[in-house]
Amino acid sequence: MRRRVKVLSAGVAAAVIATAAAADDYGKDAALEARFDSAISPAEMDGWLESLAAEPNHVGSAHDKANAEWVLQKFKDWGWDAKIETFKVLYPTPIKVGLELISDNPYTATLTESPVAGDDPTNTKDALPAYLAYQGDGDVTAPIVYANYGMPDDYEALKRMDVSVKGKIVIVRYGGGWRGLKPKLAEEHGAVGCIIFSDPHDDGYAVDDVYPAGPARPPQGFQRGSVEDMTLYPGDPLTPGVGATERAHRLSRAKSKVILHIPALPISYGDAQHFLAAMGGQVAPPSFRGSLGITYHIGDDDAAKAHLIVTSDWSLKTLYDVVATMRGAKYPDQWVLRGNHRDGWVMGATDPLAGQIAMLGEAKAIGELAKSGWRPKRTLVYLSWDGEEPGLLGSTEWAETHADELKKKAVVYVNSDTNARGYLFVEGSHSLQHFVNEVAEDVTDPETKATVGARLRGKLLADSLDQSASDKDKALGKIAADPSEDIPIGAMGSGSDYSVFLQHLGLASLNLGYGGERDWGGVYHSLYDDYKHHSTFVDPGEVYSGVLAKTAGRLVLRAADADLPPVRYSDVADTVAGYLDEVEKLADHKRAVAEAQARAFDLNAFSLASDPTKPGAAPTKLKFVPHFNFAPLENAVERLKQSAKAYDEALAKKGDSLSDAEKAKLFDIAREAEQALAPKEGLPGRPWYKNLITAPGTLTGYGAKTLPGVREAIEQERFSEADKYAALTADAINAYSDAIDEGTSLLIGKSK
Amino acid sequence: MRRRVKVLSAGVAAAVIATAAAADDYGKDAALEARFDSAISPAEMDGWLESLAAEPNHVGSAHDKANAEWVLQKFKDWGWDAKIETFKVLYPTPIKVGLELISDNPYTATLTESPVAGDDPTNTKDALPAYLAYQGDGDVTAPIVYANYGMPDDYEALKRMDVSVKGKIVIVRYGGGWRGLKPKLAEEHGAVGCIIFSDPHDDGYAVDDVYPAGPARPPQGFQRGSVEDMTLYPGDPLTPGVGATERAHRLSRAKSKVILHIPALPISYGDAQHFLAAMGGQVAPPSFRGSLGITYHIGDDDAAKAHLIVTSDWSLKTLYDVVATMRGAKYPDQWVLRGNHRDGWVMGATDPLAGQIAMLGEAKAIGELAKSGWRPKRTLVYLSWDGEEPGLLGSTEWAETHADELKKKAVVYVNSDTNARGYLFVEGSHSLQHFVNEVAEDVTDPETKATVGARLRGKLLADSLDQSASDKDKALGKIAADPSEDIPIGAMGSGSDYSVFLQHLGLASLNLGYGGERDWGGVYHSLYDDYKHHSTFVDPGEVYSGVLAKTAGRLVLRAADADLPPVRYSDVADTVAGYLDEVEKLADHKRAVAEAQARAFDLNAFSLASDPTKPGAAPTKLKFVPHFNFAPLENAVERLKQSAKAYDEALAKKGDSLSDAEKAKLFDIAREAEQALAPKEGLPGRPWYKNLITAPGTLTGYGAKTLPGVREAIEQERFSEADKYAALTADAINAYSDAIDEGTSLLIGKSK
Repeated sequence: MRRRVKVLSAGVAAAVIATAAAADDYGKDAALEARFDSAISPAEMDGWLESLAAEPNHVGSAHDKANAEWVLQKFKDWGWDAKIETFKVLYPTPIKVGLELISDNPYTATLTESPVAGDDPTNTKDALPAYLAYQGDGDVTAPIVYANYGMPDDYEALKRMDVSVKGKIVIVRYGGGWRGLKPKLAEEHGAVGCIIFSDPHDDGYAVDDVYPAGPARPPQGFQRGSVEDMTLYPGDPLTPGVGATERAHRLSRAKSKVILHIPALPISYGDAQHFLAAMGGQVAPPSFRGSLGITYHIGDDDAAKAHLIVTSDWSLKTLYDVVATMRGAKYPDQWVLRGNHRDGWVMGATDPLAGQIAMLGEAKAIGELAKSGWRPKRTLVYLSWDGEEPGLLGSTEWAETHADELKKKAVVYVNSDTNARGYLFVEGSHSLQHFVNEVAEDVTDPETKATVGARLRGKLLADSLDQSASDKDKALGKIAADPSEDIPIGAMGSGSDYSVFLQHLGLASLNLGYGGERDWGGVYHSLYDDYKHHSTFVDPGEVYSGVLAKTAGRLVLRAADADLPPVRYSDVADTVAGYLDEVEKLADHKRAVAEAQARAFDLNAFSLASDPTKPGAAPTKLKFVPHFNFAPLENAVERLKQSAKAYDEALAKKGDSLSDAEKAKLFDIAREAEQALAPKEGLPGRPWYKNLITAPGTLTGYGAKTLPGVREAIEQERFSEADKYAALTADAINAYSDAIDEGTSLLIGKSK
Repeated sequence: MRRRVKVLSAGVAAAVIATAAAADDYGKDAALEARFDSAISPAEMDGWLESLAAEPNHVGSAHDKANAEWVLQKFKDWGWDAKIETFKVLYPTPIKVGLELISDNPYTATLTESPVAGDDPTNTKDALPAYLAYQGDGDVTAPIVYANYGMPDDYEALKRMDVSVKGKIVIVRYGGGWRGLKPKLAEEHGAVGCIIFSDPHDDGYAVDDVYPAGPARPPQGFQRGSVEDMTLYPGDPLTPGVGATERAHRLSRAKSKVILHIPALPISYGDAQHFLAAMGGQVAPPSFRGSLGITYHIGDDDAAKAHLIVTSDWSLKTLYDVVATMRGAKYPDQWVLRGNHRDGWVMGATDPLAGQIAMLGEAKAIGELAKSGWRPKRTLVYLSWDGEEPGLLGSTEWAETHADELKKKAVVYVNSDTNARGYLFVEGSHSLQHFVNEVAEDVTDPETKATVGARLRGKLLADSLDQSASDKDKALGKIAADPSEDIPIGAMGSGSDYSVFLQHLGLASLNLGYGGERDWGGVYHSLYDDYKHHSTFVDPGEVYSGVLAKTAGRLVLRAADADLPPVRYSDVADTVAGYLDEVEKLADHKRAVAEAQARAFDLNAFSLASDPTKPGAAPTKLKFVPHFNFAPLENAVERLKQSAKAYDEALAKKGDSLSDAEKAKLFDIAREAEQALAPKEGLPGRPWYKNLITAPGTLTGYGAKTLPGVREAIEQERFSEADKYAALTADAINAYSDAIDEGTSLLIGKSK
């Protein structure tokens, strides 16, 4: 028997008590994994990275297609059954972009990133200019208003300063929430254009030395990206819910709800400084202040106007997903899926190729195992996605195309994306938490020679003692200090290719990677995220791409070969109980805040507090917060705890005595249970998102909201929806318990 | 009967429940106060301010002496018995100051502040250059280390980066703690020099437009100041505890423990940018980053050295305190004292003359009342202090000289200092909390036409609803929303002339002022704190100097004429109970943190968490925290609650029936009670500070520490002292209760 020490991964604060251990070793075969590890070669990955990242490889670029063909050939060389699947998607490309400052000091924004001496690939002529996919095109001239991060709180702050953005061009900085929300919220508030700049405070010189002296953003660097409204649905804007095959039914561009209507551009802080320095109006409040060497003003006056032009080619483009399969010897219709995207915004060395080469390393090592006679019990499907950057296009369209088959066959989808030197990060389905903790205990961290699990535990514990530690950090530190507890894995929001699997199809999913030692975010989506930057500052020698391969590879191998499902339902029960507790506290907190605010209005506090020399207004009045019927959820969570406990205990006692068919049946039950959490109705206003346990927040974009139907109804004052979604979510949890109970019956029946 | 609505002031978080109202109106005479108000003229104050602030008026300057004589004449003109008292103090003045950067880009710091066009007084040749009084003189050349705010946490952060300041010149920024601690801690850590700069993040362009466009610090502005070690004692460094009269016994300069030994200078951010940009070494951690447009580095390498020279004239100088008296008609030996300093670092318009002119306005108005036949029952003593800026010299030396008389006669000392447009701020002896709340309800705020009390209540309530509100803000907001509760007044630390009265002599004291609407801190102690800046940005028309006069004047008039002491002992009991609760929680928290850290060391967490590419070290090991004997304090606080309640209730029932002599006796009792809180032994290592309820923190400088003997023993891991000071503090509180009980007996005896 193997030592069963708990290990770790990172993300969310809910403390999860370890329950009875599963009956098997979750498919672990130490000898096989040792052979697998020995076939992982960071030195070889280094060569792959340099080649894949040699030229811009965004959707539609020549190098993107060439990379797909190169990857295809590699899979074939390694013994996989591989092919390229193509999709036709709406993917706009810039025809014209322009931005001028109209002021006493006029200025024309560069909108291009200059090359760096000594880093040859940055001399490319093929890089996209400053551009945001799925912005709205236009040619507008208007006064500028600075709206900080462009998030809802910032518009509330502007309102309290008596500033409207109606008819104005909004300039906002990156950070504080997902990029795509910035022009969307600007549009909703009446703005006619949106400029997003990278403030040096957030990823430039304030954070670290700038490239090439260090990893941080140089003055001329900007962040491209997608502003497709992925809070409604990701993937091709014209084919929601179905695969964007040649013959798919398509919406017109005008009918698609995920494309914005105002022009928007990203700019560098070198460019932004000219605009911000020219602006007059009120002095920006403290939360709006960045690290440019100026006084930030709100603008909204005649001192500075902007002229913004964006014109795009809105033709359909072709995606190239590489799909490689290794058929399972025992359960060919149970699939273990593993994916990482291949397209970047420019060269994409850290994002996504550091993850892509890890996945390729796994595929090569598995190929070698297969050549020596081993075969996985379950079918492996490796996926090199195209078009992730514009909106998870490659994964979404592929999974929508194969939805029925996936719902019947997928055991788990394992995703990765960017990767860097540092600490393990995992988020995903909570049923897999203990499985992940087990794997993390078997991978060695090259910097400390401890396991990656032990290293993360150390990191969480050390961080929890820092003066700046949040309550969440402190809670994680307590868990980390107790070896009898698993480290929780985070809930999934969005931002990478797992979204369609978890949130649309309801399939168990994981997303993992390494990072956190030196911040590389300053080159994110810029020309400077290239091989030289990556191998100098992010992961010299691609050592941590190798560690990622060993970690994700173990997840794949064990999921493929496990006799029993690598799940522990008690972890789900405990975690969901924690989420319910959060939501109940949220309601109480919102109620108390609304009552305190009402009291403040009664006492005329906002008038009394205001400075009469400044324009000002009271805050938006909060709605009275009713009491909600959480009883169905409370009952469902209680039942889930009982059901999970019964299953986990029965499995520990009886799992090994099941027949192969019965063991396979438990996998089917696990799959059905996960799908029960994503019923047909979906989330309010965005039915593509079906998972009622976790979703990307409509006002966070990437960040997860758990129990989203209920939580967002309360957060966003759509109070009448809260009871409805509490009941729907309770139904989903009860269906999950039903599935578990079926498994328990099977186990107990066996014991009779 | 007058309406008895509760009102407000600001400072500390402990919620204080209102108890039985006092028996009289605390000396309020509405008709008298209306006449007093009508004699307050901001327009006249404006003229005084322009004249007093016309030239530099630091200690030893011609204009300081001229101002003293002008103030003396005014008091005389207004009918006061006035004189100048002089003291001879050690007050160093610069002979030579110099600072050079030795690097690839050498630079010589300007160390002077250039004039501003359109603001004639800034053309003066008499301003002090960049200088810190009581630094150590020297001529040193060494590599530079950037130590953030130069506070203990920053040295811990440097230690964790494996950086020592031994033999180096430390460069630190203003903020995070009192100025004087910065070179002191640098010296303690082995540095040979200290440079303090004003980062634009803290009071420059990041905060507001810079002067003359706005109130914030321009690039060439710097903050002069004292670095006398006032945590040991303030006042003349050579005469601790006694008045610096001509014949006083003086220490040698070498024997004085409050003068530093290393040279130190303040510089502007225009100068500092050259030094910081030249420095190499590690990238500064997030908490070290300011708003200069550069990557901040720690230095500690050969890229940048500094050559720092300071030579001073250490001769004795003369202070001119103006002392004006109006003899009490009924109780001439009970004194109500009112003071504000007169010396600035340069022109000192906001600091201190905006407060000085308020005090002069009161004196003139009181003079007019006196001319019309009114006389105060108690003696008024108005004090225009010299030499506050170098170290509270004028007040400390005067009060030390007259200590015996003050201990017998002083009813209360009312202080003010800087003043600006905005909200009332009060700190002081907790027995006076309700008195202050009463007065705040009778002064009208000119901007809102509400009372200054109601306005502050509105401000506290509005701030408590802000997203950035701290727990303390939220607690204050709850109190502010409940009209049945008084707003607590803050505990006094140091930083103005009340220190000797409250902390050395144990006399009831208050400190008050207005401010908070537009931050003027960017001209603090600079050339630009002048009449034009003040009347443009800080308090146009000196309107709030007028409000301060009406507020402080009421405190003075009521304290002078009240039949019964304007105190409510229950407020003291409740507040001290809150302090004890904080200290007990502090001990528990420190114990938990030490235990968590020990666990982290056991698990090797700091090694596991560290980045092997960076120099690094584990944190300093925290000492095991024993359990302390808080029982004497707990018992003393319980008894105080009972004693206070009995007195307050007896006073409400019987106060009015006392004879004049008995009423006067209650004043004596109040005075003796306050002095009981400041027993002879004083605080550990700094016996000048005798008050055991509040003191400036040894590691905060200005900021108050309550129950300081106990609290600092725990905070600073001098655990063996905690029990000793818990017992001593309990003794002091019991002596306070003894005095109260004497008052209760007198009241109850009367009722028999």
